[in-house]
Amino acid sequence: MRIPEILRLQTDRAPGSLASALAVVADAHLSVEGLRAVARNHLHTIWELTLEPDESFDLEPLLDRLDALPAVRVLGRSDRVFARHEHGKIRTVASRPIDSDETLRDLYTPGVARVCRALADDPSLARHYTAKHRTVAVVTNGSAVLGLGDIGPVASLPVMEGKAALLAQLASLNAVPILLDARDAPSMIAAVRAIAPSFGAILLEDIKAPECFDVEDALIDALTIPVLHDDQHGTAVVVLASLLSASRRLGLDLTTAVIGQIGLGAAGLGVCKLLLAFGCAVLGADPREEAQQRLRQLGGEPCALETLMRSCDVVIATTGVKDLITPSMIQPGQAVFALSNPEPEIDPMTALAAGAGFAVDGKAVNNVLGFPGLFRGALDAGASRFTHAMRIAAAEALADMASDDSLIPDPLDQRVHERVAAAVARASAADASAADAPRRSAA
Amino acid sequence: MRIPEILRLQTDRAPGSLASALAVVADAHLSVEGLRAVARNHLHTIWELTLEPDESFDLEPLLDRLDALPAVRVLGRSDRVFARHEHGKIRTVASRPIDSDETLRDLYTPGVARVCRALADDPSLARHYTAKHRTVAVVTNGSAVLGLGDIGPVASLPVMEGKAALLAQLASLNAVPILLDARDAPSMIAAVRAIAPSFGAILLEDIKAPECFDVEDALIDALTIPVLHDDQHGTAVVVLASLLSASRRLGLDLTTAVIGQIGLGAAGLGVCKLLLAFGCAVLGADPREEAQQRLRQLGGEPCALETLMRSCDVVIATTGVKDLITPSMIQPGQAVFALSNPEPEIDPMTALAAGAGFAVDGKAVNNVLGFPGLFRGALDAGASRFTHAMRIAAAEALADMASDDSLIPDPLDQRVHERVAAAVARASAADASAADAPRRSAA
Repeated sequence: MRIPEILRLQTDRAPGSLASALAVVADAHLSVEGLRAVARNHLHTIWELTLEPDESFDLEPLLDRLDALPAVRVLGRSDRVFARHEHGKIRTVASRPIDSDETLRDLYTPGVARVCRALADDPSLARHYTAKHRTVAVVTNGSAVLGLGDIGPVASLPVMEGKAALLAQLASLNAVPILLDARDAPSMIAAVRAIAPSFGAILLEDIKAPECFDVEDALIDALTIPVLHDDQHGTAVVVLASLLSASRRLGLDLTTAVIGQIGLGAAGLGVCKLLLAFGCAVLGADPREEAQQRLRQLGGEPCALETLMRSCDVVIATTGVKDLITPSMIQPGQAVFALSNPEPEIDPMTALAAGAGFAVDGKAVNNVLGFPGLFRGALDAGASRFTHAMRIAAAEALADMASDDSLIPDPLDQRVHERVAAAVARASAADASAADAPRRSAA
Repeated sequence: MRIPEILRLQTDRAPGSLASALAVVADAHLSVEGLRAVARNHLHTIWELTLEPDESFDLEPLLDRLDALPAVRVLGRSDRVFARHEHGKIRTVASRPIDSDETLRDLYTPGVARVCRALADDPSLARHYTAKHRTVAVVTNGSAVLGLGDIGPVASLPVMEGKAALLAQLASLNAVPILLDARDAPSMIAAVRAIAPSFGAILLEDIKAPECFDVEDALIDALTIPVLHDDQHGTAVVVLASLLSASRRLGLDLTTAVIGQIGLGAAGLGVCKLLLAFGCAVLGADPREEAQQRLRQLGGEPCALETLMRSCDVVIATTGVKDLITPSMIQPGQAVFALSNPEPEIDPMTALAAGAGFAVDGKAVNNVLGFPGLFRGALDAGASRFTHAMRIAAAEALADMASDDSLIPDPLDQRVHERVAAAVARASAADASAADAPRRSAA
């Protein structure tokens, strides 16, 4: 796990002073992840230098070496990340000012009773006169938080608030972190079912496998609102988008290619589900018998890692195991997606040197591109569930918007999420009308 | 139950045209609750006329009579209340813009991991780096919604959103409606316990008696965050504030006066709890044996309505039964709070004519004055529960801010809620230090 460290360095305003500092950083085998001048006078510049060392990395000797440079002084570590988290990342506000007795009486009592009564007669009016159908519960028990593992519900709250802030910023949705004090699937299912009337959709997040599969399946069955486990399907959508982009460039036909998925956890099985729905042949490697069983049930074929590497045109890896793929396993012309973050299963440069036709790591696959548009589209369409068609539509929209020099578009471009949402909503409507249409094929 | 009707009337711009319309309204025994000119040209004025007729009132003959006036035309009914509810009354927004790769990496991954890890090491940091300690769950199952009864969770959402909007507007708190698909107390308790890590405090609302008592008691025991059932305690605080204001004006000493509470539902028992804590002698009238039993356990004395009316200096009624108190029951100089809304147990004018020294109805007691400051104060103080001292401090602060011509201050005055919050926080700190102090009285 790499976690950012942001150093505050002061350099003399003289040519070479910054370079001397960066040379020391390079000598410690660290990449510069960010560099910003935060203050400057006629003598000095103060920099925020972002590094992302391994957990095992000992920062103190580096700081000493930097401080010993003649033109550099280490001022300390920045608390920029913490400052940006002060009091949390989301706020709930009143949609309209309550500034007169009349508005108070309309929005609260006695006026509100007219709206309550209308909803009691026709609950579908909640769509128009409440925020329910724009509100997503972001649900976790904190048992599998990105790279941190089982840190429990409260420590996972910053991640859930981050998701909520992104849903607000990128898709104009309301989102509410719901932290579950529950470990087993039945307890999680019961809790979410009990509070489901409050929400238009449920985003499950950072729940460990295999509980995450049971929780998602049971909630999809029990509820009439869209439920999505982001670690499975959000990731899968962005992976499929990257794959579509790459295959267009490589002239590869995904429906005839054999695709190998290494690692059948939540993300890996989510990728398999979507690729199988897309029509791909999928092999999967995972040492766990239970994971293999799940893949078999989906229609994929479990096999050993070596077999997979030998027989697949495209390889996707989501194992969290650094350097799992060795150069000798790479086949000529193979497309390699080594997605584990922050350390890929094989470095893309190494894979290319070993003969891969195409290779990227997880930096090319940004999760944030998936869930905002998926949820906005499902809610706009009034969908009761997510379907493969909706997820494929999202992936295709993302691939269509990729620029020439990247597989997927910029996640901070608002229009991307609007177009994903529109594609998802159209796919949902098409699904619904297909379900309504007379089944001619059966006639 | 009275629910507002807002008519759109067009009158000729000639002296007497509006008066002719209002004369017809008066003739139908309706009071004008609001009147606003919404458009005007050289020929006509268009008015929004707010009436609050009884449910049994038939509006159509009134509309026909108005329309038949030579200078008046009925344009229809206004949907102003519904328009103000469009898409709900609350929104969740990102606290800070996410507009660069750097902010995305600080607020989401990988930067968020630093904050998660810090919280895993020290959960109390959630207070500083998440929104949890400014976030209140507004929880209901919709079983006892203001005057509407058991309309279920979704139909009660506009009330919960109203509470949330008021908490945002008046106390700068985040609030989240949580609608429970649960009928019995154990299911409600289990659901709220499961999601409690998400919140800094729990506001229970519109849950019917007796379940509301068990739910509140169990959650106070199980959780380490403040829990308050507003129908009991929020109401009680505002009633006590009114009583303090009134007794100051009447020169009445509440600690020696005998106070009668008519109606021992959620609101009535809440009033009894707080008055007993304040040091009052309390009689209570309610035909239900179970309610009498609850009062006895609190230290109050159940008695018949007639006995209560004969022996009390102050009478408070929260029964929902119109005209329950007859003029012959009134004792000379008695203070009468006939609080049922919208129809009091005795009209204040009638009570005064029958010899009461003081009489008000529910319009003088606005609930909105209580909960925002109570929650803000408890959260500011980091309180683990609400205490009687905190509720009494809130009531005293409200009474202190009442203007000369009303018992309690204007609920839309932000400073009122700030002062209530400050008083509640001080009382919480005093409670905590009293609990920490050596028990000298035991020595």
